[in-house]
Amino acid sequence: MEKEAPTWTLGELAQMFGGELAGDPNHPVARPAPADSDDPLGIAFCESERYLRVAQSHQIGALILPKNLSANGRPAIHVDYPRLAFFHLLTLSGRPLPIPPGIHPTAIIDESARIGDGVSIGPYVVVERGADIGARTKIFPFTYIGEGCIVGEDSTIFTHVVMYQDVSLGARCIVHSGVVLGADGFGFMWDGTKQVKIPQVGRVQVGDDSELGANTAIDRATAGVTTIGRGTKLDNLVQVGHNVKIGEDSVIAGQTAIGGSTNIGSRTSIGGQTAISDHVEIGDDVMVGGSSAVPSDLAGPGQYFGRPAIPATEGLRAMNAVGKLPKILSRLRALEAKVKELEERGS
Amino acid sequence: MEKEAPTWTLGELAQMFGGELAGDPNHPVARPAPADSDDPLGIAFCESERYLRVAQSHQIGALILPKNLSANGRPAIHVDYPRLAFFHLLTLSGRPLPIPPGIHPTAIIDESARIGDGVSIGPYVVVERGADIGARTKIFPFTYIGEGCIVGEDSTIFTHVVMYQDVSLGARCIVHSGVVLGADGFGFMWDGTKQVKIPQVGRVQVGDDSELGANTAIDRATAGVTTIGRGTKLDNLVQVGHNVKIGEDSVIAGQTAIGGSTNIGSRTSIGGQTAISDHVEIGDDVMVGGSSAVPSDLAGPGQYFGRPAIPATEGLRAMNAVGKLPKILSRLRALEAKVKELEERGS
Amino acid sequence: MEKEAPTWTLGELAQMFGGELAGDPNHPVARPAPADSDDPLGIAFCESERYLRVAQSHQIGALILPKNLSANGRPAIHVDYPRLAFFHLLTLSGRPLPIPPGIHPTAIIDESARIGDGVSIGPYVVVERGADIGARTKIFPFTYIGEGCIVGEDSTIFTHVVMYQDVSLGARCIVHSGVVLGADGFGFMWDGTKQVKIPQVGRVQVGDDSELGANTAIDRATAGVTTIGRGTKLDNLVQVGHNVKIGEDSVIAGQTAIGGSTNIGSRTSIGGQTAISDHVEIGDDVMVGGSSAVPSDLAGPGQYFGRPAIPATEGLRAMNAVGKLPKILSRLRALEAKVKELEERGS
Repeated sequence: MEKEAPTWTLGELAQMFGGELAGDPNHPVARPAPADSDDPLGIAFCESERYLRVAQSHQIGALILPKNLSANGRPAIHVDYPRLAFFHLLTLSGRPLPIPPGIHPTAIIDESARIGDGVSIGPYVVVERGADIGARTKIFPFTYIGEGCIVGEDSTIFTHVVMYQDVSLGARCIVHSGVVLGADGFGFMWDGTKQVKIPQVGRVQVGDDSELGANTAIDRATAGVTTIGRGTKLDNLVQVGHNVKIGEDSVIAGQTAIGGSTNIGSRTSIGGQTAISDHVEIGDDVMVGGSSAVPSDLAGPGQYFGRPAIPATEGLRAMNAVGKLPKILSRLRALEAKVKELEERGS
Repeated sequence: MEKEAPTWTLGELAQMFGGELAGDPNHPVARPAPADSDDPLGIAFCESERYLRVAQSHQIGALILPKNLSANGRPAIHVDYPRLAFFHLLTLSGRPLPIPPGIHPTAIIDESARIGDGVSIGPYVVVERGADIGARTKIFPFTYIGEGCIVGEDSTIFTHVVMYQDVSLGARCIVHSGVVLGADGFGFMWDGTKQVKIPQVGRVQVGDDSELGANTAIDRATAGVTTIGRGTKLDNLVQVGHNVKIGEDSVIAGQTAIGGSTNIGSRTSIGGQTAISDHVEIGDDVMVGGSSAVPSDLAGPGQYFGRPAIPATEGLRAMNAVGKLPKILSRLRALEAKVKELEERGS
Repeated sequence: MEKEAPTWTLGELAQMFGGELAGDPNHPVARPAPADSDDPLGIAFCESERYLRVAQSHQIGALILPKNLSANGRPAIHVDYPRLAFFHLLTLSGRPLPIPPGIHPTAIIDESARIGDGVSIGPYVVVERGADIGARTKIFPFTYIGEGCIVGEDSTIFTHVVMYQDVSLGARCIVHSGVVLGADGFGFMWDGTKQVKIPQVGRVQVGDDSELGANTAIDRATAGVTTIGRGTKLDNLVQVGHNVKIGEDSVIAGQTAIGGSTNIGSRTSIGGQTAISDHVEIGDDVMVGGSSAVPSDLAGPGQYFGRPAIPATEGLRAMNAVGKLPKILSRLRALEAKVKELEERGS
């Protein structure tokens, strides 16, 4: 079931990484693997003794190690930066995406759409009126590119992606399956008897070099533009409300929810399943720990954590103190009794 | 990239809104925009000085203001209710949906399905045996209408929606992309060696005038019906378990999870990423603040917040007190030392 | 709108369940229903007086009851295990799935794919190069089976499922609509100026007898395999990060997020909207209550709850104490004042 190619010898890899070989230079390596793998043709990296111990309790075939750790006889390569060598190996190990250039005959492309050179469009893709697809972009089956959408060059849009009307996506973006861009923002007005829909006539704009994870939803603006900045990465199942603006090079982990009209700066990092209220301002270079709740502004730079998110060291202490609350309550009760006794004694 | 039509003059808009013009009546306006836009052809509304300051630090072309605020020379319209005037403008600014009436030749419609007059069915739609689509309903590409499903009149079902067998959807509903209606409820019995699936043979029923956000999932009932009441609006990525009943005109924000067999009343409002346990009763006219956890019943009417959700003012105080827990702990420790000293002194 | 067949008489059902009949043996029953139904042709089960009271305030036609409860004249069947009898009835009440055997002419199957005997493939399915579909498996419309994917025998894959390259799914699995298997893990390295994507070259492997809920996303491993064990059930909108391993017969409720490289044991039960950090170890036979946060390892067997998750009884007490924090604070303040007074008095 594992793919057997590409295959290297340990010696070839050592040379490629500029590392020191420990063991048989002819030891075969088929692929990168995690330290807890039992793959005899795998090679894992360990940056610390902790991961080396994990590897040593498994049958992984070979290791990439820093110079100060020893593989104790297992085939290994010693390098200055094991993580970078492993990254190098990952880069060599990808398979080409199974989508040939050209437009599949079952794709339905409106005649007014502009399709760039070298574009790949798979079976059962729909591209609506006035859409514009940049050169060499790959669009996988069942993806829907709405009216007036713009997609930059060299982007990859996996299967089952939906772009509503007037969404724009930059160059070199990766959009994973199930992403929905440009559904209506969640806006209603109670008129005394029912919820009246506020028309959502704005757009969505995703910058160059962004990546959007599976089943993530980014709503269009009520008016104006919901914006994801250049280089920003969203994980799976993230919810981005209408009129949100996220800066550049930010990283937002899975199941985070971002309320309407919230602004998030550049180079931020938001942990998974974080809830960010609407109309919040989060500054540049802010880190928020996972499963936090952010009801109000967070100045950057800074690290925050908790429900509500407060400076991270306090937030961690607060979270741990919650577990001690039953004990805190009994200590408080004991103190109250003692103080009462002291008061009575003194009176 | 912006669409340039429709275009009005500021004078035309002032007349339409019954407002007072401040500035050049020939100032061109192309579209509504948020206060923090720099769009010279945009018009934003500001209800308060706070948003007026936002607008004044941006290049937005014109403003809709209440009568007591001044635009300081920027083209403006003064009205009694800026929000309503803006709503009016939004209503004028929508684009027609890009789906012509009729059935696209690639749609696969079972011959036993009933298709109403004036229905629009886009490319690559599948409508199964015995389904019934009401007049003038629009169904976008890649949507799947399962066996025996019923869809009311004048509804809009965007691309990539899935309705399993026997789901019914009312009239004038809007269902956004990626919504899954009628997947199996999550029910298993441990038989001592494995999890045995409990067959899920019930249905899903969504009332008239409802709206369901992108990638939301509503499970079918184990037996009986999972029910979304008339006029109820669900945001994106909401999870609704089997046998849930939600009343009318409720509004449930993104990433909220509702456990099986829970009942939620009418005119409720549930903030984003709230977790509601199974078998909970939430009364009519209940508001629950965002990212709350609701493990037990909430009587209506009332406002609740927190984990667990308690009356909202207490819940907010409790949340803020969590951040102070490390300080509370040191104050407690200090008190304990002092009391010990007092006790020793007194003995 | 209800389906009228199959229909039984109460007498037939009593005989089938080996139960005692109370009331007219010819009373007609069309389907199972919940206790709060008003369906005159429905039959519900009540295990306790609480649910019997619910049924008695509704018009449900008949009841399945334990021997010690009385239906007060409503048609009923008394059995030792009402839940099992109801389960039996549910099993009889399913409708066959609307997908005939054979391959629909609009399905696009690569000629190198291997399709087992008796497979059903619906309209607009795409099966890529080298995929292998086991005998009798059913694949619904718009599903995408990527290059090199393996699907076991007798599995059911509903509409709009996505399997990226090299994903394997076991036998007898059920995959609900909108599931995405094998999107890239969320891995980036900051190189000083931008986020660099770490190639994600691993795979996803889902064991036999698993069920995956609607719109759930399971990422491929960076290297190695993201693994869902045999018999494990995931609810809707669950996020599973790269390199996660989940054991056998585990049950994970809706909107739970599982961070990268986390290991979860067998026979675990995780409540809905739980956030599990990356690199966490959760032992066999662990139960985690809903909406918990799990930042660190949990040993099994054991029951845990809270944010952070701690032993469940403590966790519940801690959660409830959070609501009392404002009162705790005032009690602390009052004590501080009293102690100060006592100190001054004593000096």
